Amino acid sequence: MNILIVGANGKIARQLIKILAEEKDYHITAMIRKEEQAAELKELGADETIVSNLEGDISSVFEAQEAVVFAAGSGGHTGADKTILIDLWGARKAVDAAKEHGARRFLMVGSMRSSNPDEGPDSMKHYFVAKKLADEYLQHSGLNYTIVRPGRLTDHTPSGKVRIAPALGELGEVTRTDIAEVLARSIKAETTFFKAFDVIDGDIDIEKAVQSM
Amino acid sequence: MNILIVGANGKIARQLIKILAEEKDYHITAMIRKEEQAAELKELGADETIVSNLEGDISSVFEAQEAVVFAAGSGGHTGADKTILIDLWGARKAVDAAKEHGARRFLMVGSMRSSNPDEGPDSMKHYFVAKKLADEYLQHSGLNYTIVRPGRLTDHTPSGKVRIAPALGELGEVTRTDIAEVLARSIKAETTFFKAFDVIDGDIDIEKAVQSM
Repeated sequence: MNILIVGANGKIARQLIKILAEEKDYHITAMIRKEEQAAELKELGADETIVSNLEGDISSVFEAQEAVVFAAGSGGHTGADKTILIDLWGARKAVDAAKEHGARRFLMVGSMRSSNPDEGPDSMKHYFVAKKLADEYLQHSGLNYTIVRPGRLTDHTPSGKVRIAPALGELGEVTRTDIAEVLARSIKAETTFFKAFDVIDGDIDIEKAVQSM
Repeated sequence: MNILIVGANGKIARQLIKILAEEKDYHITAMIRKEEQAAELKELGADETIVSNLEGDISSVFEAQEAVVFAAGSGGHTGADKTILIDLWGARKAVDAAKEHGARRFLMVGSMRSSNPDEGPDSMKHYFVAKKLADEYLQHSGLNYTIVRPGRLTDHTPSGKVRIAPALGELGEVTRTDIAEVLARSIKAETTFFKAFDVIDGDIDIEKAVQSM
């Protein structure tokens, strides 16, 4: 399966590349912003790297891809203008490009609490709006989507166990590595097709949690 | 006709209130952010003022309104987070509230060049994305919309003449007062129903330009 990872240099994406490379079932293309990121991603297991900027024309990158994982994010250290341009506008462009080139499957790294931006803390509201509208665009695209919405991301040691539900009441933490594992397990899991769900640390094995969605 | 002006303290909105008040055909409600803006807007001709924040719950303000003009904008001096929260999210909330309370007519102050954000100068792209997505939401809402997309706004003496078209090739300037006049003339003009158009300074009388849309 040809799979394209958008935002491949991010922490979740790197873990995902590592996991997928071991399964030998994927031809992994890593879309990156800078050529100097290529060597490390290839070492992690990417079969190919393509330098392309989400703020430019990305369409050709999606040629011959069967699945897409959108793991790009403007990050906490950039301005809200980048939140619009990457998390929202970039995501829409990726969805359009996936449709254009016939990639049927589209996985998105979303954000817990983005469904109700007005309930978020003031400092996060604009981010939640951007993520919510990106999710909505994907959900109305006709693509076979899965939106994985992590709680507060950490770099702790992964537990391999999570709590998953369409809408979890309480916010919790979850490791980036566990989210990468949830993404990896979701790609071919029919239980996750056309679904969006929250993920926090929990006590159910990831494989089982994904299968019981 | 009960008409609600959202963002009523803005420069275009103030001119619009003045114009509509003279026509004696409207009951004008001005939605404002601060109570201290009320007196001046009443003097301009608003029949009523309601203090409500676009970042909060605005729904009840739309009760019994028949037409809405969304003239709110975060302005150039705030951050891009406010662009998301006011120009995009606030606009969506206003559209939802209009639908909820049965206001059939919705006029939006848009922005020229917002249809193709990637063609804009870098500093404007995030703004164009926000405006584009607000427009799209309105256009798909089922409301009878008119989106007036000015070129570069000025406070010069109005000429009373404009150039109007669904998509003008070249960017031009236009006075805020002329845009207010275009909005006023559009409210009941069937030629503008379910349409979006660019407006710059030109040589056709506003009334005639609107009627020939």
